Amino acid sequence: MAAMLASRAETRTQARILRLLRDEGPLSRAELADRLQVSRTTIAAEVGRLTELELAGDAGPATSRGGRRSTIVDFRADLRFAGVDIGATSLGVAITDGRLRVLAKAAEEIDVREGPESVLPTALRITRELLAEQESPHRLVGAGVGVPGPVDFDRGVPVSPPIMPGWDGYPVRDAMARELGCPVLLDNDVNVMTLGEQHSGVARSAQNFLFVKIGTGIGCGIMVGGHMYRGVDGCAGDIGHITVEESGPICACGEKGCLEAVFGGAALARDATAAARAGRSRVLLDMLGERGELTAVDVGAAAARGDACSVQMVREGGRRVGLTLAGLVSFINPGLIVIGGRVANLGHLLLSEIRGVVYRRSLPLATGNMPIVLSELGDDAGVVGAARMVSDALYAVE
Amino acid sequence: MAAMLASRAETRTQARILRLLRDEGPLSRAELADRLQVSRTTIAAEVGRLTELELAGDAGPATSRGGRRSTIVDFRADLRFAGVDIGATSLGVAITDGRLRVLAKAAEEIDVREGPESVLPTALRITRELLAEQESPHRLVGAGVGVPGPVDFDRGVPVSPPIMPGWDGYPVRDAMARELGCPVLLDNDVNVMTLGEQHSGVARSAQNFLFVKIGTGIGCGIMVGGHMYRGVDGCAGDIGHITVEESGPICACGEKGCLEAVFGGAALARDATAAARAGRSRVLLDMLGERGELTAVDVGAAAARGDACSVQMVREGGRRVGLTLAGLVSFINPGLIVIGGRVANLGHLLLSEIRGVVYRRSLPLATGNMPIVLSELGDDAGVVGAARMVSDALYAVE
Repeated sequence: MAAMLASRAETRTQARILRLLRDEGPLSRAELADRLQVSRTTIAAEVGRLTELELAGDAGPATSRGGRRSTIVDFRADLRFAGVDIGATSLGVAITDGRLRVLAKAAEEIDVREGPESVLPTALRITRELLAEQESPHRLVGAGVGVPGPVDFDRGVPVSPPIMPGWDGYPVRDAMARELGCPVLLDNDVNVMTLGEQHSGVARSAQNFLFVKIGTGIGCGIMVGGHMYRGVDGCAGDIGHITVEESGPICACGEKGCLEAVFGGAALARDATAAARAGRSRVLLDMLGERGELTAVDVGAAAARGDACSVQMVREGGRRVGLTLAGLVSFINPGLIVIGGRVANLGHLLLSEIRGVVYRRSLPLATGNMPIVLSELGDDAGVVGAARMVSDALYAVE
Repeated sequence: MAAMLASRAETRTQARILRLLRDEGPLSRAELADRLQVSRTTIAAEVGRLTELELAGDAGPATSRGGRRSTIVDFRADLRFAGVDIGATSLGVAITDGRLRVLAKAAEEIDVREGPESVLPTALRITRELLAEQESPHRLVGAGVGVPGPVDFDRGVPVSPPIMPGWDGYPVRDAMARELGCPVLLDNDVNVMTLGEQHSGVARSAQNFLFVKIGTGIGCGIMVGGHMYRGVDGCAGDIGHITVEESGPICACGEKGCLEAVFGGAALARDATAAARAGRSRVLLDMLGERGELTAVDVGAAAARGDACSVQMVREGGRRVGLTLAGLVSFINPGLIVIGGRVANLGHLLLSEIRGVVYRRSLPLATGNMPIVLSELGDDAGVVGAARMVSDALYAVE
């Protein structure tokens, strides 16, 4: 946590009240006392303190339940979180209220390779513009930031990020906190999306699940017992560099046959271009001629039009991802797998291949009740997850 | 936990006192108050209650620290745990005191395929014999049991265990608890050994580590944040059935190319026999002629004598295990890997191959400070781990 003065829970009961309000909406004092199994006197004292902290307070009388009249408790209406999702080529920002409902959002194209000195000012400008557009008075109490590379979560800095030259060791968290005047947390984009899925996606009620992002690269977020699992050095979930084919193509990391060297956005673009040039797909060759380059989206479009070569590439990729996931299922025995990221837009052709392999190659006990589903959040996963990350910290006792 | 009346911690402070005594030995009341950051009055009250529960109590005056005189607190001397380690062909039992020091142990050859009606009476007989041999009076307060197959931990029953026909769904935990008159916990052998490593092995101070058992089959125990991670269905760590070679040999599970179909005790015995018969190793052929069959131990002995074919088999196996572990390291980012099980006796030839592959194929950030070491506990890992498992439950508040 950045060393910033901030409005945040001071006691365990305050933290539990704030999380209940976030995850379930306004509740009466009587309901809070029931839910938390504490006395109404305790609730009164803690809500009084949350009012002084300008986090939450009374929001009118509750509907009578026949007994003593109660009062509704809710977040302060002026509370705001910012979620910032920095991708390789795009930057998204959302402003939310205390319940993490998105009040405003915007995105711009960027090139993350231009470095923090160029990208962070853009993020700050968009955040400030969105805040300025808010009609009512507001108070930013926290911001979460996701970046497309490994992060030392405790220090709030990117660590040797392969596609982000110039960001290695840059104090992103503290620089953003200084500019925004509120606590900021930094994590990698996959973990942030995982929190978004947990907050409002298909994994909403799941305590133990994997979120697999298939974008330009491939990564995995690990939720264990309701908490983000980051590993001993903060680099858990780096499944894109698991070896899947010992004599496979060279990966950006320098090794051979990593999962993301055989599948993912970059690999698909490479394979599609090669297939077009080798005359293996008329559809892809035409697309290449029109645009000068091919992307994973083109492969998806070609597959949707029935191009056998593209269908084969997606199937083979799904098989490779599925085999890797089957191994991880045997190892970690999760309750759910959510597949997201832009390449997941290839949709059900990819999903059915992944499902087929995982269900065939994992222990029946482990997959008997383990759905594999596509994310439905799209780009919101990143910005909402970033806001969720910092709200988790403020709605907790350190 | 079995529904048995038992002496166990009733409060968090009692639980913390019992764990401190277990893991560090006798402590004075003053030291307990310091360590737990509670008042001496609280310690006095909780130790009083532990005395009534016949778990721990005063054990004489403490050496003066210059201030007020204090009293040493220790476990009741008559407290006993039993650890039962059921393997495919052997059964080990240890009796420990409250600190889990082994006071007596014994082992017998069995055949787990004879089923629970044959094996459990043997386990009970050995346990009772060991208890009867105890010179001083004693009270068995809990027993842990490990079995070589998947276990539903919450129900205390084996689930579809491939090498234990007749055990599927058998109420091992409750049957043992009824006979022994104390709480019993059941888990698979690998998880139990993992707890043993955490208690008194090379992983003693580790909160996040993997224990890889290479025996007849291959399995993995996962310690996360100091707790055993069992997965959503209790079958986490089943790495023996991760696919490592899609067109590899048929596994006992029916699939092709599982890790334990290409390496492990059973695979080594099969490959060594084939190599001997095909004339690829004179040393192995001689051994086969003498004994009629070959085991992993023979391959180890032949490798130690410089037999090139055996060395090659161990190296290739180490490479296969290493590649699988490298993937798991990228995924879970552990702090330490401990290699145990009987095939780990192949020793440093195997270990150096595993290390080479893992360190080469995992993210530098993840392996920069991640030792890979051989277990030093041998057969004690199972029995001590089983006792540790049940002590964890009694020295905790449900």
